[in-house]
Amino acid sequence: MIGVVCLNPALDITHHVPAVDWAGVNRPSAVHARPGGKGLNVARTLHELGVDVLVLGLAGGLTGTEVETGLASRGVPASWTRIGAETRRTFTVVDRESGDSALFNEPGPPVSDGEFADFGVRYKEVLDGCAAVVLSGSPPPGVPPDAYAGLIGLAATAGVPVVLDAHGDALRRGAAAGPAIVKPNLAELAASTGRPLDGAGRPAVAAAARELRVAGAGAVVASLGATGLHAVTPDGGWWAAPPDAVAGNPTGAGDAVTAALAHGLVLGRPWPEQVRHAVALGTAAAMAPVAGEFSVADYNRLLPAVSVDRDGAG
Amino acid sequence: MIGVVCLNPALDITHHVPAVDWAGVNRPSAVHARPGGKGLNVARTLHELGVDVLVLGLAGGLTGTEVETGLASRGVPASWTRIGAETRRTFTVVDRESGDSALFNEPGPPVSDGEFADFGVRYKEVLDGCAAVVLSGSPPPGVPPDAYAGLIGLAATAGVPVVLDAHGDALRRGAAAGPAIVKPNLAELAASTGRPLDGAGRPAVAAAARELRVAGAGAVVASLGATGLHAVTPDGGWWAAPPDAVAGNPTGAGDAVTAALAHGLVLGRPWPEQVRHAVALGTAAAMAPVAGEFSVADYNRLLPAVSVDRDGAG
Repeated sequence: MIGVVCLNPALDITHHVPAVDWAGVNRPSAVHARPGGKGLNVARTLHELGVDVLVLGLAGGLTGTEVETGLASRGVPASWTRIGAETRRTFTVVDRESGDSALFNEPGPPVSDGEFADFGVRYKEVLDGCAAVVLSGSPPPGVPPDAYAGLIGLAATAGVPVVLDAHGDALRRGAAAGPAIVKPNLAELAASTGRPLDGAGRPAVAAAARELRVAGAGAVVASLGATGLHAVTPDGGWWAAPPDAVAGNPTGAGDAVTAALAHGLVLGRPWPEQVRHAVALGTAAAMAPVAGEFSVADYNRLLPAVSVDRDGAG
Repeated sequence: MIGVVCLNPALDITHHVPAVDWAGVNRPSAVHARPGGKGLNVARTLHELGVDVLVLGLAGGLTGTEVETGLASRGVPASWTRIGAETRRTFTVVDRESGDSALFNEPGPPVSDGEFADFGVRYKEVLDGCAAVVLSGSPPPGVPPDAYAGLIGLAATAGVPVVLDAHGDALRRGAAAGPAIVKPNLAELAASTGRPLDGAGRPAVAAAARELRVAGAGAVVASLGATGLHAVTPDGGWWAAPPDAVAGNPTGAGDAVTAALAHGLVLGRPWPEQVRHAVALGTAAAMAPVAGEFSVADYNRLLPAVSVDRDGAG
């Protein structure tokens, strides 16, 4: 079983509008509401892969209940710790005419010390049954800045490897706590190492990833959007790229990369296969319209087409 | 007690955004969620006036539960008939920089014959305790086109006067069923009579209102936005106008006019006072940022300043 920590899930509401009037009244032609947030996207992707997952989440208010029931209706097992404040919503308006999307992210609900302590009790209870743990997304307000580091430490004590996808303080402190894999994107890698990487070449990206690994992570897998990923691992460095750049859903793509890495970690895939699967699944997810979903046919078709190269400086 | 029928309430979600990126990611600086829809705005306004109200509504799913609990937390009594489909949301993005607002109205939930029959049972149960009934807003899908006419007929049998604020078929058929007052806005008056009234002078507006009254309504009160209203009544025609045109919230203004008319109907206000209060309350509501709210100070200050004139053709 893979435990997926979701401290800040969301109810993702999407309105498809024929041609948006940004200063008037619109009648959406299609409305969707589904559980979201990075952790739940990872969990849904793993569930679609047939992996045994358990979501460990915080949920509050009726929006939290909507997230809970929405996830349950998709068959994804979860253990929720209730909080007093209301789970956040995200709202996306898709303009069918221009193709543009506007996304509105509500702030996460404040979490009290007692609520986070309750969560910690559940987390410790299920750790022994986990083959790996995924920590993904920004913790909500009130959760201490070293929360992910603490959860990684507890997993290490229990002998459970962790995949960490976070940014800022949560990434820096988390990496120092010794997760098996950290998965920053390029902006997160740049911010956590203080190196400007926008438009940077491979040597600069590789140097930043090595620096983050030295901070304490077993491996660093930097997702590079449509161009694939770079991994710095105990077995050396790797570059993996999809056959064609796909313009799609970057949130869903990053979460699918995280899911593939957790899956490969549990399966014991060698690193060249790890990064191949991560790029194939990330690309398949980018091609899907909704984060947390992908086409198995796309995934299988992409797998042999992903290029995997050893890093010269590995 | 005034019964306020809300067949199609909504959860109104509002995001205030510093400067909207209509093709990117936004972080709202303020988020509000509150019960809405025209009927609930009328009920909240009456409740704020200190009037004994009872909301008679349809609610479904967790969004319906949010509407129920939100209204209860504001102290407004309600009797809900549960439906299987999910109550709708509306979503408003307010751009703090430009002042523009974009509104996204989800379609109403489908209502089955059985659910509407259940509602009818409750409606009949409470009619005897009502001094007046308000029917406001578009019925949701599945509710028969003559639903408002049927509810007006039941009220007539019970000797309870009705205020109707609707458009299209619901207005035309409803007016024919003999409500005490119908309150179209200018566009609704034009559509229901087949007369183009955009930019029309007083004689054309008065002729259309008289025509709608002849169809069966006791009185027609046409709300004319910032310029006030025109009433065609058994006591003749009246024009009422606020001291200054107020650019504000037109939804809230129309609902406040409906609330004032129901209040005046129960109090037995003579028509010149009816239209004075309706314009003062409508204008005070237009000045408030949220539909269903108004400042009592604005209302009281406006009352003596509203001009009320007899229609020459009355």
